[in-house]
Amino acid sequence: MYTNIKVIAFDADDTLWVNEPYFRETEEEFAGLLSSFETKNKIDQELFKKEIANLSLYGYGIKGFVLSMIECALELSNYTLSGRDIEKILNFGKGMLNHPIELLDDVEEVLKALSSKYRLILATKGDLVDQERKLEKSKLAKYFHHIEVMSEKKVADYENILAHLDIKPSEFLMVGNSLKSDILPLVKIGASAIHVPYHTTWVHEEVTVEEKNNAEYRTVNTLKDILPHL
Amino acid sequence: MYTNIKVIAFDADDTLWVNEPYFRETEEEFAGLLSSFETKNKIDQELFKKEIANLSLYGYGIKGFVLSMIECALELSNYTLSGRDIEKILNFGKGMLNHPIELLDDVEEVLKALSSKYRLILATKGDLVDQERKLEKSKLAKYFHHIEVMSEKKVADYENILAHLDIKPSEFLMVGNSLKSDILPLVKIGASAIHVPYHTTWVHEEVTVEEKNNAEYRTVNTLKDILPHL
Repeated sequence: MYTNIKVIAFDADDTLWVNEPYFRETEEEFAGLLSSFETKNKIDQELFKKEIANLSLYGYGIKGFVLSMIECALELSNYTLSGRDIEKILNFGKGMLNHPIELLDDVEEVLKALSSKYRLILATKGDLVDQERKLEKSKLAKYFHHIEVMSEKKVADYENILAHLDIKPSEFLMVGNSLKSDILPLVKIGASAIHVPYHTTWVHEEVTVEEKNNAEYRTVNTLKDILPHL
Repeated sequence: MYTNIKVIAFDADDTLWVNEPYFRETEEEFAGLLSSFETKNKIDQELFKKEIANLSLYGYGIKGFVLSMIECALELSNYTLSGRDIEKILNFGKGMLNHPIELLDDVEEVLKALSSKYRLILATKGDLVDQERKLEKSKLAKYFHHIEVMSEKKVADYENILAHLDIKPSEFLMVGNSLKSDILPLVKIGASAIHVPYHTTWVHEEVTVEEKNNAEYRTVNTLKDILPHL
């Protein structure tokens, strides 16, 4: 099935290392900070709305998340939040940016095995400087030909990467945890994709059953399970 | 002199379009907002210090600038700044991100003339989503083979680009307004560089006479002046 593959692209966040759980933890702390103003449920909803409203302006990543938290906190507190509490939100962000990297199971073993047979690249959404820092901390850079930090992961973005790599869709395989970002766009352009689900997914990355219908891709339980196919 | 050149890379901010003056304008507004707490001189100094302290964590770009303004404003006001004033700082940032693009003189004419003879790329520092948006607004994307949004513009970063493009330093020419970021690293690796100075430069981008000494590069007055050499 994967006989023509020349390049394997790996998503990074929640495919190679832990990411989304840190956002969930910070959302917990954020709700705690605002608990005198609103219920946790309302705070979660309003923060999500704010993130989506700002997404085209700020893009993905921690800095935009912090700016949205501050804006949301000002509104939910009717602009009465104290300066010290605003500082706490800034520090939530700095804590996330400084977080040590936690690799998922068997990541290094898998990359090592594949890097001798394929050209590997890292294809990740988010903030440029943050993703480069995580790659450096991960000590995995040596396995990758290069890193593509993408502002979006839609069909046109993957087409650009293929054009840039000068390869056909049939020669490209993407491995990742997000059906919406790492799998379905690839299936649409005739490339291959392997889905490695992760236990925590941001609501914005979830897809409906209809969107999944008829899409041809493989799903495995853990990253190591891709090896027998490649 | 430029007989072997295959790829010309253009810096974007203050080389193709106006950028730094918007930061100066926002710093003016920021100092106005805090004028009851400190002198403009002190506010400018503290904001610059804060930006530099946060640079390795936030990187270049508007979102990090906004986060540093908020942190600086909290400290300078001894945490008494009002929620409405914090909101104003968030809106300074949104105004910058939404700013219409203003091309510098003759940019399109220059790119059009060169794009038939060379492979042109855009090599810019800053925030991924913001730089992509500016390129789209500029309507200049059609002249560029691709865009390199770099977290830094140091010797190693340019070496990575050359490796990625699979070309020799003698085949690469960089055109830009920052001696520190667009010119001196290129001279160091044996590539060519043309300096097109701009009237406004961020202090962090300034270089000393010693750093400039013996570096071989050409300086022209305006972008159009590069054409007779190419």
